[in-house]
Amino acid sequence: MAVHLSGIQPSGLLHLGNYFGAIRQHVALSEQKGEHFYFIADYHALTSSRDPEALRSYIRETAITYLALGLDGDSACLFRQSDVPEVTEIAWLLGTVAGMGLLERATSYKDKIAKGLKPSVGLFTYPVLMASDILAYGSDIVPVGKDQAQHVEMAQDMAASFNAAFDAEVFRRPEMLLSEEKSSRKVPGLDGQKMSKSYDNTIWLFETGKPLRKALNRIVTDSRPPTEPKNPDELLLFDLLHLFLDDGELQQLKTSVREGGEGAPGYGDLKNRLAEGIEDWFAPAREKRELLLADTGEVDRILARGGEVARERAASVRDRALEASGLR
Amino acid sequence: MAVHLSGIQPSGLLHLGNYFGAIRQHVALSEQKGEHFYFIADYHALTSSRDPEALRSYIRETAITYLALGLDGDSACLFRQSDVPEVTEIAWLLGTVAGMGLLERATSYKDKIAKGLKPSVGLFTYPVLMASDILAYGSDIVPVGKDQAQHVEMAQDMAASFNAAFDAEVFRRPEMLLSEEKSSRKVPGLDGQKMSKSYDNTIWLFETGKPLRKALNRIVTDSRPPTEPKNPDELLLFDLLHLFLDDGELQQLKTSVREGGEGAPGYGDLKNRLAEGIEDWFAPAREKRELLLADTGEVDRILARGGEVARERAASVRDRALEASGLR
Repeated sequence: MAVHLSGIQPSGLLHLGNYFGAIRQHVALSEQKGEHFYFIADYHALTSSRDPEALRSYIRETAITYLALGLDGDSACLFRQSDVPEVTEIAWLLGTVAGMGLLERATSYKDKIAKGLKPSVGLFTYPVLMASDILAYGSDIVPVGKDQAQHVEMAQDMAASFNAAFDAEVFRRPEMLLSEEKSSRKVPGLDGQKMSKSYDNTIWLFETGKPLRKALNRIVTDSRPPTEPKNPDELLLFDLLHLFLDDGELQQLKTSVREGGEGAPGYGDLKNRLAEGIEDWFAPAREKRELLLADTGEVDRILARGGEVARERAASVRDRALEASGLR
Repeated sequence: MAVHLSGIQPSGLLHLGNYFGAIRQHVALSEQKGEHFYFIADYHALTSSRDPEALRSYIRETAITYLALGLDGDSACLFRQSDVPEVTEIAWLLGTVAGMGLLERATSYKDKIAKGLKPSVGLFTYPVLMASDILAYGSDIVPVGKDQAQHVEMAQDMAASFNAAFDAEVFRRPEMLLSEEKSSRKVPGLDGQKMSKSYDNTIWLFETGKPLRKALNRIVTDSRPPTEPKNPDELLLFDLLHLFLDDGELQQLKTSVREGGEGAPGYGDLKNRLAEGIEDWFAPAREKRELLLADTGEVDRILARGGEVARERAASVRDRALEASGLR
């Protein structure tokens, strides 16, 4: 059975961009044949987090979000990265065969430097731990967006280097599964840039009621009256509406906006409709989330089971790596 | 009780330079009050080893050498680095607070680059794992030679950075114990350079008989006859002889060489005397080594016990680090 691996950083409340960009595909994939490992990347989160309380709550909320959105915690293996410390050990082993040049070429590192971040060693060696995460479970398939593709290539590189250095087939070559055009269509944030925590333009996917309306009020519009005809394809609001409305309703709204006049919806009306759309879309998941929040033991049980299964797998790969390199 | 920590790389058979430069002081220190941790740095060895069989045998031989030279495996804690995988986990945590600049300034890395070594990530992040080795046991005192002093300073730095980042007293500040002038006096190799595996100029400390004579024959001399007066302080042979002969005999030999004439010893005589000196010096240790080679269970038992004690200590420090940073 093919092994699938996905990871997500617990670096904040998950937002619509996370959902349409990754989580939805992750959950859909979990229903396919094969083994499915999902790790909450808490070791990775430490490259930016300095707030233990917040991190603890994000880790938990991330697990709950996946489960609420339909991940089956009994058939898939959902776990915390730090419940498998073997990945740090394998990362050391991989580091001894990975050339500095490989990491220096990492675009995610170069991007962060370019943004003026003061780099830590962890930020630099991040792809080695990521490679270890991928290789520790013998992953065959790693679903990624374009911006993560290089990490899988680097894992392929390190696996090959280690196997060659010690003339042993320790690590299996992982293949990437690039997100389809459609699913990777960028979700715009409130300001029109890509939705991202670092731009402070996100909408928490479980937001409802007043806080949701307050967030949507920040969506950039202009002061043209509803009656004035407009091109809906140039309106940020429609980039979000299309995610939640069925095609019939969407076309009808677009026509109204394009024609203008007395019956045409104003920005406020569209924002109301978007709020309803978001609330409806996630209603079943919100309900499931409430149940999970009420029954914390269930989340603990799922994470503990996932951690055990993952750890056993990683320990066996680690043992083979130690054996091949002469440490056992 | 103060915690002392020493490490040694199992990168080859230990030689006279290792002995007079480090091992002798390590073993002497183990008789002082306090707790004593000695780790065989097998994770570190992978930054250069690509020969699993050789590494396995060097790891074992390193343990046997320390025990043969008088380390008490029951009072001191002798263990393999890789029996405490927690150090790779702590190393990841430290890496998230260590700045790239810190590692880029490491002289041991710069030296290796200068020698034209193609750098691996492991070679670069070596000081982070070293810091983890030091901090994982709550070490108070780390005996080092001058060339290792920077590693302890870096461990101090990372400990302080982590504690400050998470406002918690997780890591204890280690202090270095610089080797005394006398004990750190460089042991010359067969060619007059510092004795070092990388110069291929070493004498294995347990060498005897013909192989020892063969090795000593490589000591650089010249073709002046024994009768010709010479300055003994300019002779490489005396730099080695002074290590093994008592002062009375050494002065007598020096005088003979300085005066020259019929009774003066030739280079061959001096080499014979050196061979005897080496053999006598290590005779009790060689005997102990034979016993340990015959009883492999004893070495296994000592390493296993040491690994357990060390691991328990490291796991408790690791737990506190995870707690402070929000991963527990």
